[in-house]
Amino acid sequence: MTTQQRLTSRDGAIAHDAQDRLAPMRAHFALPEDVIYLDGNSLGPLPHAVRDRVARTIDDEWGRGLIRSWNDAGWIDLPERVGARIARLIGAPAQTVFAADSTSVNLFKLLSAALALRPDRRVIVSERGNFPTDLYMAQGLIAQLDRGHRLVLVDDAGEIPGALGDDTAVLMLTHVDYRSGAMHDMAALTRHAHEAGALTLWDLAHSAGAVPLDLAGADVDFAVGCGYKYLNGGPGAPAFFHVAARHADAFVQPLAGWFGHESPFAFEPQYRPAPGAARYLCGTPPVLAMAALDAALELWEDVDLDAVRAKSCALTDAFIATVEASCDGMGLELVTPRDPARRGSQVSFRHPQGYAVMQALIARGVIGDFRAPDILRFGFTPLYTRFVDVFDAVEILREVLETRAYARPEFQTRARVT
Amino acid sequence: MTTQQRLTSRDGAIAHDAQDRLAPMRAHFALPEDVIYLDGNSLGPLPHAVRDRVARTIDDEWGRGLIRSWNDAGWIDLPERVGARIARLIGAPAQTVFAADSTSVNLFKLLSAALALRPDRRVIVSERGNFPTDLYMAQGLIAQLDRGHRLVLVDDAGEIPGALGDDTAVLMLTHVDYRSGAMHDMAALTRHAHEAGALTLWDLAHSAGAVPLDLAGADVDFAVGCGYKYLNGGPGAPAFFHVAARHADAFVQPLAGWFGHESPFAFEPQYRPAPGAARYLCGTPPVLAMAALDAALELWEDVDLDAVRAKSCALTDAFIATVEASCDGMGLELVTPRDPARRGSQVSFRHPQGYAVMQALIARGVIGDFRAPDILRFGFTPLYTRFVDVFDAVEILREVLETRAYARPEFQTRARVT
Repeated sequence: MTTQQRLTSRDGAIAHDAQDRLAPMRAHFALPEDVIYLDGNSLGPLPHAVRDRVARTIDDEWGRGLIRSWNDAGWIDLPERVGARIARLIGAPAQTVFAADSTSVNLFKLLSAALALRPDRRVIVSERGNFPTDLYMAQGLIAQLDRGHRLVLVDDAGEIPGALGDDTAVLMLTHVDYRSGAMHDMAALTRHAHEAGALTLWDLAHSAGAVPLDLAGADVDFAVGCGYKYLNGGPGAPAFFHVAARHADAFVQPLAGWFGHESPFAFEPQYRPAPGAARYLCGTPPVLAMAALDAALELWEDVDLDAVRAKSCALTDAFIATVEASCDGMGLELVTPRDPARRGSQVSFRHPQGYAVMQALIARGVIGDFRAPDILRFGFTPLYTRFVDVFDAVEILREVLETRAYARPEFQTRARVT
Repeated sequence: MTTQQRLTSRDGAIAHDAQDRLAPMRAHFALPEDVIYLDGNSLGPLPHAVRDRVARTIDDEWGRGLIRSWNDAGWIDLPERVGARIARLIGAPAQTVFAADSTSVNLFKLLSAALALRPDRRVIVSERGNFPTDLYMAQGLIAQLDRGHRLVLVDDAGEIPGALGDDTAVLMLTHVDYRSGAMHDMAALTRHAHEAGALTLWDLAHSAGAVPLDLAGADVDFAVGCGYKYLNGGPGAPAFFHVAARHADAFVQPLAGWFGHESPFAFEPQYRPAPGAARYLCGTPPVLAMAALDAALELWEDVDLDAVRAKSCALTDAFIATVEASCDGMGLELVTPRDPARRGSQVSFRHPQGYAVMQALIARGVIGDFRAPDILRFGFTPLYTRFVDVFDAVEILREVLETRAYARPEFQTRARVT
């Protein structure tokens, strides 16, 4: 499937879809008829299987099984089982990945570990444009430790290798930038960090389910990620963490809750960490949300991840080329790297009226999102996005820009979540 | 409703139920016909409203509304709205209570704050019998701070006032003991702590929805609690936290995630805490689980909490009296305080073959639970437990003990979760 060029007709786009081996996956998702959904990088849509699985979890397991379901329905193993499904998608060994808590909370645990494993170093290197909660959690941890740690933020990815030095404890990066869609070279940067004696903590929020990942091959130390974007686990789905086996037993993380205890149901007064990465679990797992994520991940079991990447590149290529051909001179500026090897599965354009343009698009059923100050963000999710969606979305974008439909006052008022 | 005495006949128990003003509440719960459920203190049963609400959240809000539901369906406000419902049940002002994360994670945030607000003090006073995850989280925090904090554990509640001294930063207690069901005098102990210059952190896991609470009246500083026990929010439901208004702005808690930021969607690189207790929020809220808890809490809106307490005391009184009359000399020893004013809404008996006895009961449809080493635990939950359940449960307990049914080998094998 090669679509390096723009889509010139709706029929042409439909012809691409007819050749798409992943096309049958779309039937697994509930997608409203009147919507072109290009925001699966923010919240993945509902897989039909989730509805059934959650209903079963509620009626049979909770309603009829009651407390017995911790054993009988295997609730107790959900963090590990869900983690094993994610491990395959990110190229990590099972047992090094568990589903738990939020991305923020998991990052705190892993960053605590990384700093503890480099006790003589005081610097966390990251990007100023990293997803804010990652920076906030680092700031919170630094303030709490009060031992002179510093967050050193670079403005440009090219500065990262040069920022790594003798005092760098951790290189903490989001693999695919949430605003620009630019993708780091995980293996190369991890190598740079290791050469400097530092550890790496990767946030895979915009990578897991979006781009090929090989955490084991890249020798990544720690990683966190999100269950509700490309993994389609539902709003606020449990997040996940990865701790490389070589580090897993080296540190007792501070959020030392009973589900990370070696023997939670012995009810001992003294914490004893579970062996391996399971010690990074904390409180009681959220069973309904875990069941939803588990069902969503089941869809991936027979999916060829190389085919996902190939289609992702074709969709994003086609979108860039078609927008640039159709909306030339209308104020859009491409933010995402033009080289598909350097981007994730989203495309972002800057526009001076970005917020209002996105509201006008949403009013016409093209759902992407806006990121301050001026970025229109479009996610392309190969399990359900079609080439005809790309074509139709660009047509509507062109119409919104050409007619200045975005200038209407109702599109200027900011919603609480944008 | 007074049943200080034992239930002497099934008809007598049914007569009690006929006079019970809370009896109609039972119809709101899915309770299997063949089960007498006395484990709502571990996992509350399914409210029918939860099934409908979660289905609506999945189909309409997630499936059709997609990302728009953060605004349109008010997902963004769920932690606050759910918190406000809980605030009423625990006698705390709205805006001081939010639903979020797990009890363990919330305890870490609040304990961090309490220690920071008493920077010259190094001691956390608690009980050796406190619920283990509370002790583990304190141990994890102490190890991380590495500033010489100590956890001082008393073995008997009577020792608590004497353990509070000039070096006590925090008195950290679970209000109703998970094993014995014994209830602390929250107001008196909080006063003792304050007299010693210390702060209080109460775990309400076995209190919220079980006993009357007046956090404001008792001048409590911090509290956490659980959504999946007496509040019936479902397995692993979101937990909650309370931060007294006087402390809310005094400290930036370390789990400083984007949902506790003053302006989460400004995507600023620097953390700025939200005003008030909202800064104790961290990551993206788990919407499906929050919706379930919200629906479960809606059941409480018209419930008279004094009537709940009166029925709870009557049920537990009746259970103690009937067991002691029916099972005399069969190896049971009451663990729970005999004075109803000194207990929560559960009754525990010790038995040398406790584990096997509980397994035999469960096999006969009487579901309580076991807590090591020898405790049979029975929860009485006035929204759905009937006096006839008390009568029938005791009859079955008597039969199990009399016939030594528990001696069968299959009842001796430990399950993973007990």
